[in-house]
Amino acid sequence: MRIGELSARTGVPAATIKYYVREGLLSGGERRGHNRVEYGEAHVRRLRLVRAMVEVGSVPIAKVREVLAEIEEPDRDIDSTLGVASRALAQHRLPAEEPRAQDLDLAREIVRRRGWDAIHPGHPYLRILADAIGRLRELDLVDMVDMTGEYARAAEIVAEFDLALLSTRRERDEILEAMVVGTVLGDAIFEALRRIAQVQVSARVYQRGQQKPLESEDDSS
Amino acid sequence: MRIGELSARTGVPAATIKYYVREGLLSGGERRGHNRVEYGEAHVRRLRLVRAMVEVGSVPIAKVREVLAEIEEPDRDIDSTLGVASRALAQHRLPAEEPRAQDLDLAREIVRRRGWDAIHPGHPYLRILADAIGRLRELDLVDMVDMTGEYARAAEIVAEFDLALLSTRRERDEILEAMVVGTVLGDAIFEALRRIAQVQVSARVYQRGQQKPLESEDDSS
Repeated sequence: MRIGELSARTGVPAATIKYYVREGLLSGGERRGHNRVEYGEAHVRRLRLVRAMVEVGSVPIAKVREVLAEIEEPDRDIDSTLGVASRALAQHRLPAEEPRAQDLDLAREIVRRRGWDAIHPGHPYLRILADAIGRLRELDLVDMVDMTGEYARAAEIVAEFDLALLSTRRERDEILEAMVVGTVLGDAIFEALRRIAQVQVSARVYQRGQQKPLESEDDSS
Repeated sequence: MRIGELSARTGVPAATIKYYVREGLLSGGERRGHNRVEYGEAHVRRLRLVRAMVEVGSVPIAKVREVLAEIEEPDRDIDSTLGVASRALAQHRLPAEEPRAQDLDLAREIVRRRGWDAIHPGHPYLRILADAIGRLRELDLVDMVDMTGEYARAAEIVAEFDLALLSTRRERDEILEAMVVGTVLGDAIFEALRRIAQVQVSARVYQRGQQKPLESEDDSS
């Protein structure tokens, strides 16, 4: 196909496609005579993956290049490539300051308690988790830290869905595209659903229970 | 207590406390003679709530004022006050464009299928959900939309934890503070845990299964 069709099929403007080729994120098409360059299905897949990382995941171009190099590595299994992609997605979310050792220990303890033995103790999301725990501590809401263990259980349920979605895909580029989009848009979807579910559960707890939590000690409401 | 102690106990600088008083977010202290103003425990609670909304939830001052007015309303039950706070947290996340009717219908259908009957069809988080669904559709990843129903089940589990945390609190200000902080920092905590859990589940699915999903059709990895 010509660049116009590649652009139409992926939703990426032709100028952006050329930019990705110059940056080494996409191989150039096959030159067929004067002024005619052909692209194939592999370009469609690769372009969709690049778009997912750049547009949906806000991954910097240099990091995208790293993930792509990982895919090309014949000895790498898909699990380790997914790990590289996951770390690339963490880049722009890492806390500016190193979390306190106390909070990092607690983050590791939560992971250990769930039996998650595949997590490297230096994993960037452990630092992001520790940072949020530290903020709860600073706000003097330590009992909320205890809930983190319960959240981990729910997170595992969601991660099972996430991986089930990847297992329907065969090509590495497609698996990674689904992983990046599913992770990033999945966050937004889960966040919205959690808040909607709170409304529902709150109605049940506070309305049908006739404001029990407030009335049990005083009637000032 | 004097303003210095109020500041120390809440972590809010004295100048910010004075600003909140001027903006009507906090009642002034009790004047006791020349140059001496006393604050009480109610000020501590209110200030913590204001801080949670402004600093943690990024709620604009005008919206904070609305939520506080709601708390003072004697006829309002805590459930409806929580609803007002939840909508205030949605403000800066609303999509710029109105989602397509098709996506909004699907968002409502997901909520209906879970039996969540307390959700107003115009709830802002339905629009946020519809927007994310629309992005999946644009990316041509329609099968991921189907997963949203499964996410809803997990979101309900998390929302149950969230509400259990509120039920240990008695004062309306404290309930709302815990709700705002729990919702916002809870998003960050869940997001980190979900990504950590993905690493764990991916290791199980792809490593112990000897890369089954890739090897079943070809051996190109």
